[in-house]
Amino acid sequence: MFNTLPKSARIIEVGPRDGLQNEAKVLDLSTKVEFIDRLALTGLETIEVTSFVRADKIPQMGDAKELFKTIKERDYYNKLNLPCLVPNTKGMELAIDNGVKEVAIFTATSNTFNQRNINATIEESLERFRPVAKLATDNGIKIRGYISTVFGCPYEGETSVDSLMDILSALKDMGCYEISLGDTIGVANPLQVKNILSRVFKTHSANELAMHFHDTRGLALANILASLEMGATNFDSSAAGLGGCPYAKGATGNVATEDVVYMLESMGVSTGVDLEKMAHASKYILEALGKESSSKYLTAYLASGK
Amino acid sequence: MFNTLPKSARIIEVGPRDGLQNEAKVLDLSTKVEFIDRLALTGLETIEVTSFVRADKIPQMGDAKELFKTIKERDYYNKLNLPCLVPNTKGMELAIDNGVKEVAIFTATSNTFNQRNINATIEESLERFRPVAKLATDNGIKIRGYISTVFGCPYEGETSVDSLMDILSALKDMGCYEISLGDTIGVANPLQVKNILSRVFKTHSANELAMHFHDTRGLALANILASLEMGATNFDSSAAGLGGCPYAKGATGNVATEDVVYMLESMGVSTGVDLEKMAHASKYILEALGKESSSKYLTAYLASGK
Repeated sequence: MFNTLPKSARIIEVGPRDGLQNEAKVLDLSTKVEFIDRLALTGLETIEVTSFVRADKIPQMGDAKELFKTIKERDYYNKLNLPCLVPNTKGMELAIDNGVKEVAIFTATSNTFNQRNINATIEESLERFRPVAKLATDNGIKIRGYISTVFGCPYEGETSVDSLMDILSALKDMGCYEISLGDTIGVANPLQVKNILSRVFKTHSANELAMHFHDTRGLALANILASLEMGATNFDSSAAGLGGCPYAKGATGNVATEDVVYMLESMGVSTGVDLEKMAHASKYILEALGKESSSKYLTAYLASGK
Repeated sequence: MFNTLPKSARIIEVGPRDGLQNEAKVLDLSTKVEFIDRLALTGLETIEVTSFVRADKIPQMGDAKELFKTIKERDYYNKLNLPCLVPNTKGMELAIDNGVKEVAIFTATSNTFNQRNINATIEESLERFRPVAKLATDNGIKIRGYISTVFGCPYEGETSVDSLMDILSALKDMGCYEISLGDTIGVANPLQVKNILSRVFKTHSANELAMHFHDTRGLALANILASLEMGATNFDSSAAGLGGCPYAKGATGNVATEDVVYMLESMGVSTGVDLEKMAHASKYILEALGKESSSKYLTAYLASGK
């Protein structure tokens, strides 16, 4: 009944990119940099900072070049992993030009989701990313992979675990050092998580994978607990739960970093993240967005007058 | 790594009592009855409906007699368990006079908490409830017990598991058919839950116990998952998470029934509760209170336009 929990876990903070990209309000450059500066003080090792995408398509990330130029001057540029999302070769070239040391590429286990999201089948998306990954590898840039809809798709419902296994292999072959399994619409449950991970861990080790849960139906921490019990040690999360759910307006999206860190630390699983400093960063960005926290830990912390 | 989950679990709905007692707004009788009527249609077997306390102390429950008189006329009075909280002999006598078939009594594992809550040490509280329990037993009334601060106290911090074991025995000796272990301030973590339950289940069976988690720091569902993995099958929860946290204004208190039911059902653990009908009851009471849901499942469900 007791499963051995890992001694430590790594948090991948996705708030400045995945979080802010899914907030309606477009923030100015200095606010985003200040947010990242504050996150860099928390003890986080990995912060996804921006995305090299078309500004007319995703205005929230429209200043990726300027943002990264500023970040590059910071002390923490040499100490932290600061991945940037790149959707294609054009984005990859911009990332190289701007001194990015780690990029993230992405696909999904659902063809319909991929079609609607990036106008490509799963196979086409992998084809599209092969030259991107080669460019990264040739330039000594680390690559992180994202797989969406692993636990369910808004259009197709349950998706295939066989397909997941194929995509994992393909992304690993392209050179991804870590691949993040996403519960894009927050429908995963702990039993499903254990079932899928028992299959995945037969051929992949825990340090090659990250778990990316959404808290849309409140199950993210239970799913993280289930993942930990299966041996997973890397978890994506977003400061204050930034991002919301694109499929249900007003609902929660990304699990909040504060909630994840609090749960892990309370069980003696070390994250290296200072919760007080996280709250400081999150409070700042929530005020800039004019938004309430979706992190219950943070809400309780702020309610206590801290 | 896989723990066998139970095939079914029982939800004890505490919204009309524990929930509404901790809401600032005092609702009128007809609103509360309508809420209970709607809850009675959801498939819930047990609904804690009110508390026989002094109206000047707890105005939210000031109409216990009138409320129970109305409930007694309902069809479901003979079908459901409808416990009422009684703080003393006076309350117990009122419960008997009004046809209550199940009562709840309460203490805590922390002396300081008990002193501040009911002006009695743990031992004095047990002494106070012995004649109450005898009255219940003599009148064929079932008794449920609550133990607060099992996982931590706002004044004393961690509380003693030895003390918990003594209180459990005392309440069982008084005739409690089920005893609810409360995480009163929402500080439990899954590892602690497993540790405490591994001790408790040495001498008590799962059907004698219920778990009562607060979602103040977002860990309630993870704690319920940990409890399930240890064999627990009875869970207290509150429609829409009614109740809030008396120790941090604005923070979450009771875990929401919707979140618990959704997690359990998604893993194939049957609760018998219809989530659509739960949402119907919760939406009604949230509108009456002028309050947002603290249930992420319910928020997503309502956001989807249902």
